[in-house]
Amino acid sequence: MPTHPVHLLVSCPDSKGLVSAMTGFLASHDLNVLDLDQHTDSQEDWFFARIAFDLSGSGPLPDLIELWRPIAESHDMSWRLHDTAERRRMAILVGKGDQCCRELLWRWEDGQLDCDIPLVISNHPDAAKHVERFDVPFHVLPVSAETRREQERAIRTLIQEHDVELVVLARYMQILSADFVASMPNRIINIHHSFLPAFAGSKPYHQAHARGVKVIGATCHYVTEELDAGPIIEQAVVPVNHRDTLDDLVRKGSDLERSALVSGVRLHLQDRVLVHGRRTVVFH
Amino acid sequence: MPTHPVHLLVSCPDSKGLVSAMTGFLASHDLNVLDLDQHTDSQEDWFFARIAFDLSGSGPLPDLIELWRPIAESHDMSWRLHDTAERRRMAILVGKGDQCCRELLWRWEDGQLDCDIPLVISNHPDAAKHVERFDVPFHVLPVSAETRREQERAIRTLIQEHDVELVVLARYMQILSADFVASMPNRIINIHHSFLPAFAGSKPYHQAHARGVKVIGATCHYVTEELDAGPIIEQAVVPVNHRDTLDDLVRKGSDLERSALVSGVRLHLQDRVLVHGRRTVVFH
Amino acid sequence: MPTHPVHLLVSCPDSKGLVSAMTGFLASHDLNVLDLDQHTDSQEDWFFARIAFDLSGSGPLPDLIELWRPIAESHDMSWRLHDTAERRRMAILVGKGDQCCRELLWRWEDGQLDCDIPLVISNHPDAAKHVERFDVPFHVLPVSAETRREQERAIRTLIQEHDVELVVLARYMQILSADFVASMPNRIINIHHSFLPAFAGSKPYHQAHARGVKVIGATCHYVTEELDAGPIIEQAVVPVNHRDTLDDLVRKGSDLERSALVSGVRLHLQDRVLVHGRRTVVFH
Amino acid sequence: MPTHPVHLLVSCPDSKGLVSAMTGFLASHDLNVLDLDQHTDSQEDWFFARIAFDLSGSGPLPDLIELWRPIAESHDMSWRLHDTAERRRMAILVGKGDQCCRELLWRWEDGQLDCDIPLVISNHPDAAKHVERFDVPFHVLPVSAETRREQERAIRTLIQEHDVELVVLARYMQILSADFVASMPNRIINIHHSFLPAFAGSKPYHQAHARGVKVIGATCHYVTEELDAGPIIEQAVVPVNHRDTLDDLVRKGSDLERSALVSGVRLHLQDRVLVHGRRTVVFH
Repeated sequence: MPTHPVHLLVSCPDSKGLVSAMTGFLASHDLNVLDLDQHTDSQEDWFFARIAFDLSGSGPLPDLIELWRPIAESHDMSWRLHDTAERRRMAILVGKGDQCCRELLWRWEDGQLDCDIPLVISNHPDAAKHVERFDVPFHVLPVSAETRREQERAIRTLIQEHDVELVVLARYMQILSADFVASMPNRIINIHHSFLPAFAGSKPYHQAHARGVKVIGATCHYVTEELDAGPIIEQAVVPVNHRDTLDDLVRKGSDLERSALVSGVRLHLQDRVLVHGRRTVVFH
Repeated sequence: MPTHPVHLLVSCPDSKGLVSAMTGFLASHDLNVLDLDQHTDSQEDWFFARIAFDLSGSGPLPDLIELWRPIAESHDMSWRLHDTAERRRMAILVGKGDQCCRELLWRWEDGQLDCDIPLVISNHPDAAKHVERFDVPFHVLPVSAETRREQERAIRTLIQEHDVELVVLARYMQILSADFVASMPNRIINIHHSFLPAFAGSKPYHQAHARGVKVIGATCHYVTEELDAGPIIEQAVVPVNHRDTLDDLVRKGSDLERSALVSGVRLHLQDRVLVHGRRTVVFH
Repeated sequence: MPTHPVHLLVSCPDSKGLVSAMTGFLASHDLNVLDLDQHTDSQEDWFFARIAFDLSGSGPLPDLIELWRPIAESHDMSWRLHDTAERRRMAILVGKGDQCCRELLWRWEDGQLDCDIPLVISNHPDAAKHVERFDVPFHVLPVSAETRREQERAIRTLIQEHDVELVVLARYMQILSADFVASMPNRIINIHHSFLPAFAGSKPYHQAHARGVKVIGATCHYVTEELDAGPIIEQAVVPVNHRDTLDDLVRKGSDLERSALVSGVRLHLQDRVLVHGRRTVVFH
Repeated sequence: MPTHPVHLLVSCPDSKGLVSAMTGFLASHDLNVLDLDQHTDSQEDWFFARIAFDLSGSGPLPDLIELWRPIAESHDMSWRLHDTAERRRMAILVGKGDQCCRELLWRWEDGQLDCDIPLVISNHPDAAKHVERFDVPFHVLPVSAETRREQERAIRTLIQEHDVELVVLARYMQILSADFVASMPNRIINIHHSFLPAFAGSKPYHQAHARGVKVIGATCHYVTEELDAGPIIEQAVVPVNHRDTLDDLVRKGSDLERSALVSGVRLHLQDRVLVHGRRTVVFH
């Protein structure tokens, strides 16, 4: 019988017996722990855990949840449960430069991203050629200062119609409204083309070049209302030197963006990221 | 009341309920889990865990062990327990080049290595000057082809007299006898000045230079009977290029050796390394 | 007037006045140096240089060469000259796994590799789908123990017919004959999926996993008669740990292979690599 | 006859024949080029070069300089010349934490830094113990808000008395006056404990921890009037994660600081750094 993994994520004030309560519950229902990660932030007295367990051969998940609920409540746990049999649905938003978008589609096509991708949305037609190679529907929704609200409404409608649970901004150079962001907390992932918090905002490679830094970076993070300030999932860096022109920074940075974004998205899809305030716990 | 951490390490065939058995035992004795790491090697069906728990306010450890023993036996566990109140005793063996030795002493003096260092032993007098700066007794035991056995016997005597539990070979360029190695399994740590298994044996920097590699490395590993083939704890690497002379490789490599050795020794002293065959599980 | 770069590469015994001879020659013909790299291997007393100069506004290159020849001869120089107005022609050979091949085609399509790619050759039909997306002709030449010679002859015929100057083995898992290799010295580039010289030969990820290394690598090198022993152009590495299964190593390694191969091929196409014995000088 | 290297550094507007003019001059005086590095910033049309040549067997340097001067003037060159026979004199300023200071002294003692160190100055007595191990005079000059000017004057007097040419701030946590800084342009090197421009100012590790970054860094730069904004010589980075407490960041960062500072100081002492505006050209 193949395994049927279910992921349980827990975040709560630290106290004695938390791991025991979780694993004891699973053991009492004869459910095998496939993988367990735990972290205690001793400064904040906060407990984080991720348990992957095998549901195969067990009763239905909803029944199990009912039995779990009182245990979680007694420990003040925030928790969520993801049945991997239900594939997540992810939408990609992309601007003119589609390197990150292509990388995501490539990995997805190769089976490295465990999700469905029902659509890609862009404000430009440029990415069409590459997206269509992957047989993923491509929607163009142009935007101008006047149509900003309307265009975003159209995006949100598409996202709802396609039951999208995760939105990835793959170099989508528009700023989302606070409303949109608030409607999908920790479910919008962005790639910023710098080593945040250095060079937040626009044209980070220009800024990096002018400042003469010797290392550049890329940052994959959840989107929050404050621009480029959301919880960081992953950062990648590469050395540069005086020989690197602005174009070289863009090219080298593009490689970083691709790998940091794919890595961050994969970690999210595997339920390996817990957010606590402005920080993340990432169980690699 | 300050915490009094005890480390429990477990390695055994995988089965259901192992984490629950461990954490349930601790919970039933009202012992708080400070940190828990777990890994299941699904290819070998093997389970590894490290639990740090707080003994403060509890009964004596020996009593607890007696209660733990039957649980461990019922799951076929190999296990060990380290009461951090008892500081480990570590000896350093060093040859002519004492950079690694100095780095260990420096970190130790700064409180970064949780152990006592009752002595440093060398086959050369060269390191005396630096070792004595740290007020650590320095023993010179010269060695030649004829005196090899006798010299090693003297080392082993010193180690026993000083109750040494961990031996670190900090660029000690002599090969230990199979007997010596067998007497301290996974308790002798070596630093090899290459990215093993590349360039095992002598003069690895010469080999690396001749081969024209673009990255060099250093490997911290447990010593086993087979030369440079023991379980790897840590590896560090750095890029090199055609401008690097042999001397540059030695200098750059020396930095790697220092950091890889300190890191490996620290991980060992924190009971973060479990050995399984030729491989290690390292809970960073 | 746009620049018209020409690359001059020189390798010769070291002596006084070499740079002066080269730059003096260019200055006397009013040719502007765009970029100059020089290296002296003091151990071998050998001189290496790469000069990019601007031919625009100058007389024809062949005339210039005739004037350069006696200078080069008087200093015992090995030299070659590449007029960037003439694009190189590159063929890709690929096996079943086509990740490296796709990466090359992608970069090439984006204008990052300065060459033409008249064809891709494989012993399997698998890569067809991806290659054809890039509108590059794809040739399948299956191979078996009996047809090895014949198949290689067919490859060489294709390569000649298409005026191919550089052959890239992008995970082409067949061993080329000594004859073939000798016919294109330092013009066949391979990507090996390990940090050479560790894990030469087949199944390097299996070897790396069994050995329990903490870092894996990929090596881009010129092919020579001896397997996996040719001059190294580029090496890339990434940390791994006990959680990484064999599949994880393959996936992580694949990313390394892609970037090391693209990087090595780009350096070659930019005439930045000089070979001297088993070593390379790479002017980044 | 041993070589007697002299370093010539040039920075000027780009024009044809610059390398030829430099190497031609040396060749005409029968001086052998040991090493040549050149860079043209095509965006700013600016030329940079470093030539190491061998003075042994030649006439006196001052005569040579007189012959060189008109050539330099005709090309509008900024230039400086360093005769390696004259050792530079370097002072270290240190605060309470002396890890960086110790690393510099250690490397210097091992012959890796080509300079004299006539004194170490601190505003605290704490570093005395370690500095005195290296037999380097240690001066304590305490500072308070009231005595700031006076204390700095005392420092400057010491520096002048000891003919100091390079000042290294090895975690000296006081801000130097604009006057002091202006008096030693590009001759005061600081190590900042973050990846600048992220986390400039005080308590960068606190800032990094609060922001939840996944990579931390250290920056070695020349001191200019504007705090933490001077030209960057070297940056080093290391990954961190949620398990790293503030103390861990401090410890890991300390390793970065040590290596970035030593590296930056070595590059400066070898005349490998040219400053142009806010950027550096570093000929590794």
